[in-house]
Amino acid sequence: MILPSETSMLVIGGTGGTGSWFARYFKGCGFRVSVWGPGKKVEVAEKMNVQFASDLNEAVKESDVVLLSVPIKKTAEVIRDVAPNMRPGSLLMDVTSLKSEPMEAMMKYAALGVEVLGTHPMFGPTMPTIKGQTVILVPGPKRCEKWLSIMETMFRRDGANVEVLDAEKHDEIMAVVQALTHFAYISVGAALKSLDFDVAHSRRFMSPVYEIMIDFVGRILAQSPELYASIQENPKSKMVRDAYIEECVKLAKRADEGDVEGFMEIMKDAAEHFQDRDQALVRSDRLIKLWIENRMEDV
Amino acid sequence: MILPSETSMLVIGGTGGTGSWFARYFKGCGFRVSVWGPGKKVEVAEKMNVQFASDLNEAVKESDVVLLSVPIKKTAEVIRDVAPNMRPGSLLMDVTSLKSEPMEAMMKYAALGVEVLGTHPMFGPTMPTIKGQTVILVPGPKRCEKWLSIMETMFRRDGANVEVLDAEKHDEIMAVVQALTHFAYISVGAALKSLDFDVAHSRRFMSPVYEIMIDFVGRILAQSPELYASIQENPKSKMVRDAYIEECVKLAKRADEGDVEGFMEIMKDAAEHFQDRDQALVRSDRLIKLWIENRMEDV
Repeated sequence: MILPSETSMLVIGGTGGTGSWFARYFKGCGFRVSVWGPGKKVEVAEKMNVQFASDLNEAVKESDVVLLSVPIKKTAEVIRDVAPNMRPGSLLMDVTSLKSEPMEAMMKYAALGVEVLGTHPMFGPTMPTIKGQTVILVPGPKRCEKWLSIMETMFRRDGANVEVLDAEKHDEIMAVVQALTHFAYISVGAALKSLDFDVAHSRRFMSPVYEIMIDFVGRILAQSPELYASIQENPKSKMVRDAYIEECVKLAKRADEGDVEGFMEIMKDAAEHFQDRDQALVRSDRLIKLWIENRMEDV
Repeated sequence: MILPSETSMLVIGGTGGTGSWFARYFKGCGFRVSVWGPGKKVEVAEKMNVQFASDLNEAVKESDVVLLSVPIKKTAEVIRDVAPNMRPGSLLMDVTSLKSEPMEAMMKYAALGVEVLGTHPMFGPTMPTIKGQTVILVPGPKRCEKWLSIMETMFRRDGANVEVLDAEKHDEIMAVVQALTHFAYISVGAALKSLDFDVAHSRRFMSPVYEIMIDFVGRILAQSPELYASIQENPKSKMVRDAYIEECVKLAKRADEGDVEGFMEIMKDAAEHFQDRDQALVRSDRLIKLWIENRMEDV
């Protein structure tokens, strides 16, 4: 058995989208879960069949794990209030998309003997299960002996891909994997608006490959602007945005001037750098085929 | 029966990727297909079990349909050489991604009584069939009586989504649907290079949603730079690129300044304009789920 019986977990922010997803997940793993949220939405707790912690301080003191699922900008503040009151041997973890800042706060404020595990689930609460998803774990240096392997084993057992990184490397990679992709897509959405382009109407003229690309723009726009804004606050992401805009300007200049050779040169250099492009083509072909066979005409 | 028996088609550029795809497709539809290509790759014709037209002029004169599958920049020139020699009652069609310029050339040079049908298949030759794909048809004004319905019926029968547009409207829509999405993705690829970001290594840290987004960047980079350069030559696409870069700069400024409210405002405005964003989220969730269930570990 992975988990000692009667292990308790308090999810702060557990009535929100991500928080309630994890409350349900860990309840399914065998934790005795309670939740707390600033809106006091007791009905959300009742629906999940978990307790709503009416006394937050008491619940913090009693829990084996305190999981923070609060907006990034509030994370440090909540850590400062909560972490000093936790009991030795317990675990403090967050589920924030950035890691340097929350890790620093958790390491600073967590009481002596409290373990620290930064966690970045790279998926949102619209995913039905953790299977096939990636979870990045950032164990507190020398402060995560017992709990790292418990959480890792649990996530892996349920089909997740678990990767362990340090906070700085995490933020460096996410400045590209998340911040750059989001930035490019949100800007496409903003351009569609500034051009007053009728997306719904133009779907008639899209083949599946364009439908998929445009749906990923809509997908991001349909989700929490707060989350997407906070992912851009990654300290490494300014440099990435700058590099992106510089490349956009360069590419546009060549296209504007009808410099076909120059345009192709940029594309070829990028292709050469993107080593597994041929596999990407095969994989995306397979994805498009799956989509054609299974797409819903009803949505 | 859609097609009169013994109808002949000459595919100019029929030994290339797109050209040979259509040669095979129309052969399957019952056409007596021959192909011609500047590289004289007779072996490609033999492999498809169609004739290689050794005498191009003769083949043009004898064919019921001449289909042009040549690079955009050569299309007008080939039209000028070929179109005047076609016989009355025959059809001249192209499969170019832009429509204004080739339509103008076809209308100008096609001999009297020759029908003209601009065709834009919105998929590449890596797609196994036409099923589920979109084909845009641009009939020559008052010059496509007989053949429009034959082609339309054939494509629809085989499961394609067929849309009829005029050349200008086509180019206007494609400046966004194709040119903008490609531009944003190629720029991501160029930024990955300029940042020296190791894509293959970082895949470990991507969940499916990021894998899919990055694979679409790789997908484009893996294909013909010439084709992607030519799509940017759409006369309407400069304005679209300009609008995109302007939005990138605006969004980056807000992120750089830590103006979370301002960032969220741009995103909310874009979301409001993108009307079917909630359906886009549901559809992309379904796509990601399909991918998790079916993805290949072997590629």
